Amino acid sequence: MENKLKIGIIGLGTVGCGVVKVLSRFDDIEVAAVAVKNINKKREVEVKKITTDPYEIAKDSSVDIVVEVAGGLAVKDVLIEAIKNKKHIVTANKELLAKHGAELFDLAKENNVVIMYEAAVAGGIPIILPIKTSLKANEFNSVAGILNGTTNYILTKMEEDNLSYDECLLKAQKLGYAETDPTGDVEGYDAMYKIAILANIVFNKRIDYTKIYREGITKISAGDIQIANELGYKIKLIAQAKKVDNSDNLDIRVHPMLVDKNRSISEIKNATNAVLLSGFPVDKVMFVGPGAGQFPTASSVVGDILSIKAELHTNSCVLPMTMCNHSKYANIIDIDDTKNSYYLRISANNEPGVIGKIGLACGEFKINLSCIIQKGVIDNPNATIIVITENCYERDINSMIEKISKDNHIRVENKIRVM
Amino acid sequence: MENKLKIGIIGLGTVGCGVVKVLSRFDDIEVAAVAVKNINKKREVEVKKITTDPYEIAKDSSVDIVVEVAGGLAVKDVLIEAIKNKKHIVTANKELLAKHGAELFDLAKENNVVIMYEAAVAGGIPIILPIKTSLKANEFNSVAGILNGTTNYILTKMEEDNLSYDECLLKAQKLGYAETDPTGDVEGYDAMYKIAILANIVFNKRIDYTKIYREGITKISAGDIQIANELGYKIKLIAQAKKVDNSDNLDIRVHPMLVDKNRSISEIKNATNAVLLSGFPVDKVMFVGPGAGQFPTASSVVGDILSIKAELHTNSCVLPMTMCNHSKYANIIDIDDTKNSYYLRISANNEPGVIGKIGLACGEFKINLSCIIQKGVIDNPNATIIVITENCYERDINSMIEKISKDNHIRVENKIRVM
Repeated sequence: MENKLKIGIIGLGTVGCGVVKVLSRFDDIEVAAVAVKNINKKREVEVKKITTDPYEIAKDSSVDIVVEVAGGLAVKDVLIEAIKNKKHIVTANKELLAKHGAELFDLAKENNVVIMYEAAVAGGIPIILPIKTSLKANEFNSVAGILNGTTNYILTKMEEDNLSYDECLLKAQKLGYAETDPTGDVEGYDAMYKIAILANIVFNKRIDYTKIYREGITKISAGDIQIANELGYKIKLIAQAKKVDNSDNLDIRVHPMLVDKNRSISEIKNATNAVLLSGFPVDKVMFVGPGAGQFPTASSVVGDILSIKAELHTNSCVLPMTMCNHSKYANIIDIDDTKNSYYLRISANNEPGVIGKIGLACGEFKINLSCIIQKGVIDNPNATIIVITENCYERDINSMIEKISKDNHIRVENKIRVM
Repeated sequence: MENKLKIGIIGLGTVGCGVVKVLSRFDDIEVAAVAVKNINKKREVEVKKITTDPYEIAKDSSVDIVVEVAGGLAVKDVLIEAIKNKKHIVTANKELLAKHGAELFDLAKENNVVIMYEAAVAGGIPIILPIKTSLKANEFNSVAGILNGTTNYILTKMEEDNLSYDECLLKAQKLGYAETDPTGDVEGYDAMYKIAILANIVFNKRIDYTKIYREGITKISAGDIQIANELGYKIKLIAQAKKVDNSDNLDIRVHPMLVDKNRSISEIKNATNAVLLSGFPVDKVMFVGPGAGQFPTASSVVGDILSIKAELHTNSCVLPMTMCNHSKYANIIDIDDTKNSYYLRISANNEPGVIGKIGLACGEFKINLSCIIQKGVIDNPNATIIVITENCYERDINSMIEKISKDNHIRVENKIRVM
């Protein structure tokens, strides 16, 4: 009994209960104590010891590993205390790692403990450890993915059922896919934290998440999705980080994109996540699976626990591969300096010269058009014009939009980047 | 200089040269010696020391890790010698591991060294180590995949260009995707070795590869592919291993299958590989990437080298997770005892009663039909009848086929299982 691995858990919500259930399958691991906010809440699982003071767990000398599945930033000081008490950490907290990872990883190194976080990105999909071990030989050019299940569910429903964003958000909330305040998901914050974490390990640089460009899905209309569909694209919330022209500069952002239907990532539906890596020598690999949920997340948390378990009571070894051994911050370029192909949905009074004005403005800013379609109904005073540009600078497309918007007859209703 | 990690390589073909090239990017790793068959052959890379005697490398006291990329079974004794000399092994040799893995893993354990083989299955895709680490908490129900790039390339071309198997094989050979003697790929041996290796780690059982049912793609006609396409399926060579009705029995096989176009694995084209895992708690995850090629394979080989490097000179730790700690053989059921849905392509004289005879025979063996289509041309004496059955036992479908084949007017041209 006494040489069981002892786990202390902070947080006993959906994921915490999943971790307790999965750990109950392992005879040699014991959940020694759990810290919760409300001790009287009815829960799915029974635990040996329950406390409202997470510091009790951080300081408990019998605890080997502290599992943090509470979320939010308030647990930061608890984890600092746990690390100082030489406890290994397993966390699913993407926000904490994206915002305070540097400080936590430095402290862990000082204290010769590891922080593992497979569950923080893409739920049940193994991605963190594979990048750090099996794919370690690679120099990566890019990492991109669908990292938020809620928004992918909403976009899938909007397309399949031809519904508005608001209707689908409501559906997602009813199914428990979206929270009452959906901001973290629908405005891209969640995906931003995750791409910050991925970029960190893929490019071996610290990432200042405040420099990541972020745009959510709230401005996507059912019309955008249907038009994209007709043109051979799906609309997805894509988080990506890539090297700029083989320099050390990184282009990191989260925003909706038109994705060519021939690309396999366009096929990722509902709450499923996908991560695409591109580099040398591996070329391209893709990982697909459940991005959230009680059990998939527990799969990653318990996988991390078992990896640490294999290490305990030995000299440090493979797990240092999982440590953060870089301290330089990446140079992240401004969105204005990025190059993209753009989809523009333009409303215009159906009168002569509108297409000409758009064409002239594009020419002025050296923007080549790859496609221009006017969807008007004869004798209808309003027309919808769809423009897809070739690659051009963000600042130029914005100048072009500003220019044509001066014309009272032309309104740019939406601008979506093309993957 | 003296504390560089020393690598000995056996085999300097396409993959061996890729490994040398990728390793040249790491200052702290040195290719100490390479063993080849023909010392005079012109090669893409220069190496410090080249020998025709692989035992020189197995015995070289300066070598830390022996990388075996020669393939075939002849290297077995060389690896045994290397293991006895306490060298860690990195190998891409699926045939050797499927046939003699048990002996080699036992010997490695005895000598406290590891055998790593990420490159042996699915080329550049990280799959072996993720199963053993990040996904370690799972109890798997099944592993399935497209594990052979050559056959997937041929099937993709047959579909896209409506060409015969022979024409596409020739194309594959011209492009270097298929060997002059293509048997190992097209008859499913290569995929069989790979699924044996995967089943071993997914189910923690030793696998007697001779009990794996195997069928290649040589009997698939362009017609089968077009008909499948019309019915909403693609034809893929699927390797799979799954638990039978939650018992300890395993159902392991390699054969062509009709795969519903709604399943993402149906979208895997050309030489790309994919591995699908299903289990608790993770649910379903899929890994997609290059199944072969100089650099993707080198990515996995060098990833293994770097994992071992992180372990050297420490007590054993995570890498034991990669060892084979099970010695029981799996009970693999006979193909006759498996249950499947079947596609049958039947030729018949276009005369009354044929469909009736097929229907009666199905009824006799309690086989439910999910779809029956007669594709005849009016006044043509021959008709093609396509049958898709619901799930039934292989022995029953075979009895049914035997029964209807007694009728001189009915010929079952092909039987393909449905995924």
